[in-house]
Amino acid sequence: MDHARRGDRPMSRLDSMLRRLTAQRDGLNWAALQISGIPGEVLDMGLGNGRTYDHLREILPGRRIRVMDRVLQCHPSCTPPEADFLMGEAEPMLERLAAEGAPIVLAHYDFGMGIKADDVAEAARLSPLIARVMVPGGLIISGQPLVGFTPVAAPDSIPPERYLFYRA
Amino acid sequence: MDHARRGDRPMSRLDSMLRRLTAQRDGLNWAALQISGIPGEVLDMGLGNGRTYDHLREILPGRRIRVMDRVLQCHPSCTPPEADFLMGEAEPMLERLAAEGAPIVLAHYDFGMGIKADDVAEAARLSPLIARVMVPGGLIISGQPLVGFTPVAAPDSIPPERYLFYRA
Repeated sequence: MDHARRGDRPMSRLDSMLRRLTAQRDGLNWAALQISGIPGEVLDMGLGNGRTYDHLREILPGRRIRVMDRVLQCHPSCTPPEADFLMGEAEPMLERLAAEGAPIVLAHYDFGMGIKADDVAEAARLSPLIARVMVPGGLIISGQPLVGFTPVAAPDSIPPERYLFYRA
Repeated sequence: MDHARRGDRPMSRLDSMLRRLTAQRDGLNWAALQISGIPGEVLDMGLGNGRTYDHLREILPGRRIRVMDRVLQCHPSCTPPEADFLMGEAEPMLERLAAEGAPIVLAHYDFGMGIKADDVAEAARLSPLIARVMVPGGLIISGQPLVGFTPVAAPDSIPPERYLFYRA
C-alpha cells in the first residue's frame, strides 16, 4: 500500500494512518475557517464509519451537513438526521441535490474502494456532478483527484499527496 | 463512545482516534527503547488489520514477533510468517506459548470487543496466563487494565487513560 519512506526505512501502516488522519483533520479545520464568511451547506461524500461526519458537525455546528453513502453503517453516535442522509449511488444522489438547488460551500470527497485506477476514474466521472452542487468559491477536500476545479494550496502541515484541495 | 472533552466542546471521533493511535505509536516506540538491552521475543495479542504488528516489526527488526488472533484477516502486506501466527482462542494459545517457553520481553494487549465490562473481565482472566510467558523486567502495553503486574508511568505525551503500561 502506501509505504512512504521515513528517513531510510519504510513507514509502518500505523505511521501512515496517523499521517493520513492528521492531514484529514488539519484539512477539514483549515477549510472550515476558509468558508466562514460564505453561506451554504456541507456535503460529506462517503459516510463510512462516520468519523469525518462527526468531525464536520463538531467544527461547523451552524451548517446543514448532507451525507451520502450506499449504506448506513456508521457508528450509532454518528447517524445523520434522516433528512440529511442521501442513501444510494452517487450519481442519482448528486442529481437529486442539484435539482433541489442545495448550495454546497464545503464538500468532502471520500469515495473509493482502494483500487487506484477505478477510484480515479470514478472521481473524474463524478466531478461535473459535484460542480453542479457547489456554490462559487466553495471548497472541496478530496482523497482522489477531481477535474474541472481550481487546485488550492493546502496548509504546509498537510502532506500534498494525502489530500487534495479545490475551489469551485 | 469515548467523547472526551476538548476545552468546552466534545472531541470528535476523528480527534479521538488520532489521540488513540498517537498514544499507541508513542507507547510502542517508548517501550521498544526500554527493552533494548533485554533479550527476548515480542507478542502482539490481537492482529486485527495488522497495523500494530507492522509497526512492531518496523521498530524491532531484530526480534521474533508472535501474533495471536482468532482469525487471520489483516492487510495482505502485514501477514505474519506462519510459524509466528497463533490462530485461536487466547487461553490455549497463551498456554502453548508458555509450554514452549517463549521468552516474551514486550507484549501488546489489544483484545476486546468494545463492551467495556466484558473486555475488562477478559483482560483480568488472561492476566495470569500472560504473566507465564513474560520474562522478568519485560513490558506490557495494554488497552485494558491487567492484574498482577507493576504499573509503569508512561511518557508524558501519552494520555494516561488511553494506554496502560506494566512491567512483568
